[in-house]
Amino acid sequence: MFGLHAVRDALKNSRRVKKRLLVTPNAAQRLAEDIAAAGVKPEIQDPRKFGAPLDPQSVHQGAALESEPLDWGKIGDLCAPADPRDAPRVVLLDRVTDPHNVGAILRSAEVFGARAVIATNRHSSPETGALAKAASGALERQPYIRVGNLARGMEELQELGYVLIGLDGEAPIEIDQAAAAAGGAPLGIVLGAEGPGLRSKTRDTCDALARIPSAADFASLNVSNATAVALYATRAPAKD
Amino acid sequence: MFGLHAVRDALKNSRRVKKRLLVTPNAAQRLAEDIAAAGVKPEIQDPRKFGAPLDPQSVHQGAALESEPLDWGKIGDLCAPADPRDAPRVVLLDRVTDPHNVGAILRSAEVFGARAVIATNRHSSPETGALAKAASGALERQPYIRVGNLARGMEELQELGYVLIGLDGEAPIEIDQAAAAAGGAPLGIVLGAEGPGLRSKTRDTCDALARIPSAADFASLNVSNATAVALYATRAPAKD
Repeated sequence: MFGLHAVRDALKNSRRVKKRLLVTPNAAQRLAEDIAAAGVKPEIQDPRKFGAPLDPQSVHQGAALESEPLDWGKIGDLCAPADPRDAPRVVLLDRVTDPHNVGAILRSAEVFGARAVIATNRHSSPETGALAKAASGALERQPYIRVGNLARGMEELQELGYVLIGLDGEAPIEIDQAAAAAGGAPLGIVLGAEGPGLRSKTRDTCDALARIPSAADFASLNVSNATAVALYATRAPAKD
Repeated sequence: MFGLHAVRDALKNSRRVKKRLLVTPNAAQRLAEDIAAAGVKPEIQDPRKFGAPLDPQSVHQGAALESEPLDWGKIGDLCAPADPRDAPRVVLLDRVTDPHNVGAILRSAEVFGARAVIATNRHSSPETGALAKAASGALERQPYIRVGNLARGMEELQELGYVLIGLDGEAPIEIDQAAAAAGGAPLGIVLGAEGPGLRSKTRDTCDALARIPSAADFASLNVSNATAVALYATRAPAKD
């Protein structure tokens, strides 16, 4: 990951395994406190030949950190309801590849208190620097789990009592109706990539399909916007 | 603007004044029908030295169109309620600069039937190719007006009967409560850039400030996600 903000957030996260930190003298000075606290030895770089393996258009601001993806544990441990009245939310992404969208989704998941964002190992955004930047700190705090088989992950959630609602513009009911029909159960919101939508196996594994109401037939929401609306529309009522 | 989709959408739009169309022979073939229908004479480009003045990282797919911004008319004409029971929605953006966000906002505005998206002339995203791409066709259909003085535009809306709700994470009431308090009036949703938020003049001109509920104090939504949630939360009840 790269950029002063993203690298600072990652350095502050004691759960993140840091491998290499490349910084210019200027960035080293600006990050000095966090570098010391993280106990990582920075490799000082000449600003004119910054040696991190990044896309040329990445705005690295003189700081790049190579690290392991965070280990958030298993779906069963992370998503299990705490008690029978607990109704957590989980977001499932079926091949959403754009890191900007996944980053924004992590922010929304955090805002709306989702227990986890679950994506496929293949054909979904890895924890790149672009994702970290778009997530604006949420990557360090919001569990993001990638699984080999999304349908299997969905079944695990169903065994935990989750009702899985797939978003589909053609569905007969609206998202808030689908949430109401689930009657206070834990909810998983399942979204596909723009264009292809949900794969048929994913769709078949959902308990219900629902749409976000639209005033225009040919219009569609960006996938991160659709996720945010779905999380808002299905939010649990505030507790007393 | 650039890219096959964005250029095709623009060519199809008879209201858009086209100035120059640069295409590779391959793109010319793929767009042939729309080029003929639009009556614009394409300048055929060598794919190896594509001559459009674009950012080097732009994925132009061999097609670039130079055109005037669309003329959507004036706030007074575009946003006036059709009758006393008509309660249109309008989105106002105070210095939202990122074209990806503005593009996604245009899509959401279209989905939720907002009458217009109004932004400032300065410090907001112009109609660039990146915006057109992020808007995924909505730029051709969703009115996007830029004004010299946002507070003046807000006052025009207030004179038309609009209640203006500014989004502010620190506000004491939630967005759906603010909408309910407006009692069926036309609504303007006002959003600032991430970080600085609403400028003080903009904030002072709002009729109410409201927040999107959040489960985490330090978390925040991406601005396009916040817009989508606000439009959903304040949507007019479905008509019988």
